[in-house]
Amino acid sequence: MTVTAPQGFRSAGIAVGLKSTGKPDLALVVNDGPQRASAVVFTTNRAQANPILWSRKSAQGGPAHAIVLNSGGANCFTGDFGYETTRLTAEAVASAIGSDDAERILVCSTGLIGTGDQVFREKIVGNVPALAAALAADDTSAAAAILTTDSVEKTAVHAGEGWTIGAIAKGAGMLAPGLATMLVVITTDALLDSDALDSALRGATSLSFDRLDSDGCMSTNDQVTLLASGASGVTPDEAVFAAALAEVCDSLAGQLQADAEGSSHDIDIEVRGAASAADAVEVGRSVARNNLFKAAIFGNDPNWGRVLAAIGTTEAAFDPYSVDVSFNGVRLCHAGAPDRPVDECDLTPRRTHVAIELFAGEHSATIRTNDLTHEYVHENSAYSS
Amino acid sequence: MTVTAPQGFRSAGIAVGLKSTGKPDLALVVNDGPQRASAVVFTTNRAQANPILWSRKSAQGGPAHAIVLNSGGANCFTGDFGYETTRLTAEAVASAIGSDDAERILVCSTGLIGTGDQVFREKIVGNVPALAAALAADDTSAAAAILTTDSVEKTAVHAGEGWTIGAIAKGAGMLAPGLATMLVVITTDALLDSDALDSALRGATSLSFDRLDSDGCMSTNDQVTLLASGASGVTPDEAVFAAALAEVCDSLAGQLQADAEGSSHDIDIEVRGAASAADAVEVGRSVARNNLFKAAIFGNDPNWGRVLAAIGTTEAAFDPYSVDVSFNGVRLCHAGAPDRPVDECDLTPRRTHVAIELFAGEHSATIRTNDLTHEYVHENSAYSS
Repeated sequence: MTVTAPQGFRSAGIAVGLKSTGKPDLALVVNDGPQRASAVVFTTNRAQANPILWSRKSAQGGPAHAIVLNSGGANCFTGDFGYETTRLTAEAVASAIGSDDAERILVCSTGLIGTGDQVFREKIVGNVPALAAALAADDTSAAAAILTTDSVEKTAVHAGEGWTIGAIAKGAGMLAPGLATMLVVITTDALLDSDALDSALRGATSLSFDRLDSDGCMSTNDQVTLLASGASGVTPDEAVFAAALAEVCDSLAGQLQADAEGSSHDIDIEVRGAASAADAVEVGRSVARNNLFKAAIFGNDPNWGRVLAAIGTTEAAFDPYSVDVSFNGVRLCHAGAPDRPVDECDLTPRRTHVAIELFAGEHSATIRTNDLTHEYVHENSAYSS
Repeated sequence: MTVTAPQGFRSAGIAVGLKSTGKPDLALVVNDGPQRASAVVFTTNRAQANPILWSRKSAQGGPAHAIVLNSGGANCFTGDFGYETTRLTAEAVASAIGSDDAERILVCSTGLIGTGDQVFREKIVGNVPALAAALAADDTSAAAAILTTDSVEKTAVHAGEGWTIGAIAKGAGMLAPGLATMLVVITTDALLDSDALDSALRGATSLSFDRLDSDGCMSTNDQVTLLASGASGVTPDEAVFAAALAEVCDSLAGQLQADAEGSSHDIDIEVRGAASAADAVEVGRSVARNNLFKAAIFGNDPNWGRVLAAIGTTEAAFDPYSVDVSFNGVRLCHAGAPDRPVDECDLTPRRTHVAIELFAGEHSATIRTNDLTHEYVHENSAYSS
């Protein structure tokens, strides 16, 4: 039970042949109410897939009754035909679940850009009745049906005082903000209006998915959707709900990081002593996107020089010659010069912590990234995605 | 004959033990005049090596009599001790060549950040007399002594009407602007003042090294130095000289691209129809820095979807749904939708041309980059640099 952990939701996941492996590739999450509030955050990439164009319009127009998600094809840069496929998908879902308005159906797609032909359309639209027939209040199959190159399902559940949050996520590459690349569906039976949901969702994503930068590549299909049924009848304190939602998003972001394509290290880059949170994020991101740094970590080399070379390219306020850099708790660089011997630092564990102390203020941020490995190159050169 | 091709220059390159391989690692280029005009462009990285700090001050103070360059150690983030090493090196060179002002000696270093201890200092300073003794007007050994992971020497010569330009360069990674990471020494016997040299050098680097973005990583030690002896007695037309200098820099940039660490493709990303040159550069760079695109090229996969996803992250003026993308002359994407079949495109040759037509104006720019390969990951994870 994931998105069906809260009351008022049903879900389903089936295989319709979009994936050559025959694995599940079409998912549906339905909000049975009584309330149907929602909040959605989209990719900031200007190149946006047809389901994003559809869902963006849909999300502005009112409550969401359901969300349908396919893996096995991004339906991005597929022209008017692709947009029509998205519309037909939403109409089929609306009809199958007894909704009178297709625009109340959100749509997500993930897979190869440029994929979305007649066969793709028929497989999705033609199988919506079977998908709807599989809907169940105790379903756990939706989580698998949204995966692409992911190796594991990503789920999270939070039990509040009389209310619950459930979530599924997919993402294993093209993970960079703003909005880390992913599809996420979060459900709750808490009774909250759209404004409260929107505020909580934006706060939670800004500190979790927006600080996940696996490979610097932003997708065209990102969407994080929060659906609220109100079925618990409980209205939690907004700050308590926001904190719980942030915890769920943080858990999912950690799961996405841990499953990043080909990675052998999960690297948390903690920037401290920054003049502003924005500076801390900029400094952390400059390291997270530095291929030389990322390759060094793959080689278990605590190369603090590459950290300093990376942060020197930013415009953040600090003196490059007054910076401390630690790897896994060992301070290797102090005040812009060598400190402890690098052989005191063991980078063989998968979890890697890099601390950068700027001595320029009181702000901090942690950016999550991964190393640059042979396997990353292999997965992204041998297979189109 | 490279930097000694123009009249009025001597150079030398010797091995002093900085490199564990025993290869040459210390070079000197002396301007014997009669004129000693110069122009220098430095890395824009705020984290700057001690020789950069020294040379920046030196270049502002007057003409340059000579430039001394070591490979085998960056002397970056080595504190006051490292700066003192640079000063002592300049003093030793001034003394050895009979210059009365150490500040007229430019210094460059390249190698591992954090390297620059007492042994490093003694090997350099103690061997300056031997280096000076090796100076010759027909020397060709300086080019090899500045290399690090480079596999070949990079040189260029241009013969003008009675005047000549000669050049040596090193760089095989950490190649990103502004200023692509490298050390370059360019000499000329043309009779031109510092203003003319500076203008020509900035123009030439902005179109060559500044548009080379091998791996998105900017170094702490970049320096491009132009020395003019005036020994030909000929003052060329400034536009003619600027064009010749641009050609020399373009040749060197191409050589740096071709020798980029672990690369298997030289990728020229030509952006056309941009609203401004800055937009064209931003769009080209967004593709050049996209790891998914770079890995796809390694796999000979003309993945136009990754090009569109990359350029969608920019703020350049264009409509993502009106863009054409061609690989090696085959238009695979037209007006934001699939065009020719991808199997019509052969990416097996090393030279790769990606054309992006934005239909937003009349400006264009070409960014040079390389693919992301297993060998790149290997070289940058297995060895510190």
